[in-house]
Amino acid sequence: MKELFYSVSSLEEVFAKLDSLNVKPGVEEVPIQQASGRVLAEDLRSPINVPHFRRAARDGYAIISKDTFGAGEENPVVLRLIGEVRAGQEEAPHVSPGQCVRVATGGLIPSGADAVVMVEYTIEKGGKVEVYRAVAPREHIIDEGRDIKRGSLILKKGVVLTPQDLGAIAATGAEKVKVYSKLKVAVASTGDELVRLGEKLKPGKIYDVNSVTLINAVRDSGGNPVYMGIIRDDREKLIEALKKALATCDVVVFSGGTSKGPGDAVPSALREVFTPDFLIHGVAMKPGKPTVIAAYHGKPVFMLPGYPTSALLVYYIIVDPFIRKWSQLPRRELRKVKAKAAVKMFSEEGRHEFKPVKIILEDGELKAYPTATGSEAITTLSSTHGYVEIKVGQSFIEEGEEVTVTLLKPVNELEGGGERKP
Amino acid sequence: MKELFYSVSSLEEVFAKLDSLNVKPGVEEVPIQQASGRVLAEDLRSPINVPHFRRAARDGYAIISKDTFGAGEENPVVLRLIGEVRAGQEEAPHVSPGQCVRVATGGLIPSGADAVVMVEYTIEKGGKVEVYRAVAPREHIIDEGRDIKRGSLILKKGVVLTPQDLGAIAATGAEKVKVYSKLKVAVASTGDELVRLGEKLKPGKIYDVNSVTLINAVRDSGGNPVYMGIIRDDREKLIEALKKALATCDVVVFSGGTSKGPGDAVPSALREVFTPDFLIHGVAMKPGKPTVIAAYHGKPVFMLPGYPTSALLVYYIIVDPFIRKWSQLPRRELRKVKAKAAVKMFSEEGRHEFKPVKIILEDGELKAYPTATGSEAITTLSSTHGYVEIKVGQSFIEEGEEVTVTLLKPVNELEGGGERKP
Repeated sequence: MKELFYSVSSLEEVFAKLDSLNVKPGVEEVPIQQASGRVLAEDLRSPINVPHFRRAARDGYAIISKDTFGAGEENPVVLRLIGEVRAGQEEAPHVSPGQCVRVATGGLIPSGADAVVMVEYTIEKGGKVEVYRAVAPREHIIDEGRDIKRGSLILKKGVVLTPQDLGAIAATGAEKVKVYSKLKVAVASTGDELVRLGEKLKPGKIYDVNSVTLINAVRDSGGNPVYMGIIRDDREKLIEALKKALATCDVVVFSGGTSKGPGDAVPSALREVFTPDFLIHGVAMKPGKPTVIAAYHGKPVFMLPGYPTSALLVYYIIVDPFIRKWSQLPRRELRKVKAKAAVKMFSEEGRHEFKPVKIILEDGELKAYPTATGSEAITTLSSTHGYVEIKVGQSFIEEGEEVTVTLLKPVNELEGGGERKP
Repeated sequence: MKELFYSVSSLEEVFAKLDSLNVKPGVEEVPIQQASGRVLAEDLRSPINVPHFRRAARDGYAIISKDTFGAGEENPVVLRLIGEVRAGQEEAPHVSPGQCVRVATGGLIPSGADAVVMVEYTIEKGGKVEVYRAVAPREHIIDEGRDIKRGSLILKKGVVLTPQDLGAIAATGAEKVKVYSKLKVAVASTGDELVRLGEKLKPGKIYDVNSVTLINAVRDSGGNPVYMGIIRDDREKLIEALKKALATCDVVVFSGGTSKGPGDAVPSALREVFTPDFLIHGVAMKPGKPTVIAAYHGKPVFMLPGYPTSALLVYYIIVDPFIRKWSQLPRRELRKVKAKAAVKMFSEEGRHEFKPVKIILEDGELKAYPTATGSEAITTLSSTHGYVEIKVGQSFIEEGEEVTVTLLKPVNELEGGGERKP
């Protein structure tokens, strides 16, 4: 492996490296009542014909079509009514020539019968039925397997299951469905200054914010977050935590302590755990320059910056699309809105900038105000609506210029925007 | 109450009646690690200052600003280094005039000090630090409560919590958050022909599809589905199930057996359970005409048609928006695409039609093909991508006419459309 000692990589290189990994989720069976949004892990074929018996498509009488040939408004055929089949009835009397059976829509077609005459073309009198129309063979009969033939493909592997799809599976009687397992994503924060939620804060300490944002974000990405706790700023402790995470999870997402980005201690520790497949130390993006990305035996490890807004932005830009891809889920469709830059926005040379902004409706215009990403970013974290990209090569955006804001919150959460009524 | 015996109501009347209900979810506390997507049920104020101690904004030395007044590149001030504060350190030596303490970004500012001089403007030699710049009071110090003042509003009641919001809550140390409970939605199917999944199918019987589609759809709407089982076509059984559903749940969503829409038995049974606040029997929509909607002491009851596609479409058009509204969730933003009508589509007079369609990419054009909604609708259920609306007063759509398809599946599930890569 080549030493990549803080030689900053472009986002394109990062994506290419991650694309080269072949992270595969396992397969598990889940009840179809709980499978909406999951990804089908097999081509699904029907074990039965649907319907699995001949059904009446209309209310009327099951008859032998030949008996009605030549019938008309002027010369009805008279058949003997020998019984009735209601919806759900399991048995039906056999129909012989000259006979008929009253049937309800969806009901079982009696043996012997080969068509249904609609009730509208008949008059029932005592035990007799007058049929005023000739009926063609198979008319108003739904054959066995008409909807789904036994053995036919219902749904293809890789489909994200909707309630509709699950209905089609239910029609074949399956109780469970094979879907891809959620990827286990180890989440931890590193830093001596971090304290668990609920504990009393002593001077010098702050609460562990990133584990909360990342656990929720991982779940929103379709992953299964596994919280590994707070890791102290100690090389041995970090290596120990990494080993545990790699042994038990599919993806590792750690973040630095809030007060600093991972220095060289992290990548050097990473190099010594195992031999990494690759190790990126530094990404040409802002925020996110100190991000470290590595892989061990195909397992991706992300070390995000410590500042909450930075960590979450890097998560959304780099980690989320790959957790979704590896989970076989479609890419998240982030909504974009046009807004006016409220102030001139500068960008750092050579870095692809994702400027967190707050959108405010002013004089009927949406305006994008940059929010801070530094240590004072706790409150701005929740007030950030999305980001404006300033790509490498572009040095600033003029005040009043139209910008595209990629939203990280639903649009109806914007102040002054959207309405909440059905 | 006025008798509304099958006098079909317009969708507008249905929405107005449902809008008049005041269904309120309860409130519960959930761990903030699991609260993404939930709705905040109180105005949230911070119990602490964030940060709750004076922090260094930069690596450098904590000093008394007055000591540096007059310092410059030519005439450094020399201060005595009396100690160090690392990130997370709980105590710091007091700084007296002529002294300084080395501080890391995020670290505790020692008492006595009122500013930080950045490391770039200093030279440390032995136990002394030469300061080559005058520093203003409070420079590079983040005051207590700078981000969040104790008692200040962090988030407003009604916000749909994002990972970012939960990060802001975590910064104040809260382990749990008060959110609206999910509405309990009773789901059941009625019909003598229905069989539970997994059971052996006898002739005349079909599997209960609607409970599976509706349970999944309710969960997607933010509700908590409660399965009440299969209800036989028996007035007493239906009344018993309704009583149980109304006693234990917030909303009732039943559907008719697959083979028939609810006839008069259902509304007449509904009238006799309690005195309904209102009772709508029949909606001027297609599919969905036999839909019955009622309310008892403010609790909504929906009796959907039995055909799976009809039941689910009525669910999406009428029930989903209200479950979301009552849950305080924003309306679902259904994606719309333009397509060409592949065939002439007729509409029934006086009914707002929602024609289920499948979209196929043909010769670079999206074409909308109607899918069936009748008894043969099991497979078409999963192949339906969305619907085309034909409003009351419009009698048909010409072949080749541009139509707007409201999608019920994500766009990248369309054949030939979308891509699946990050």
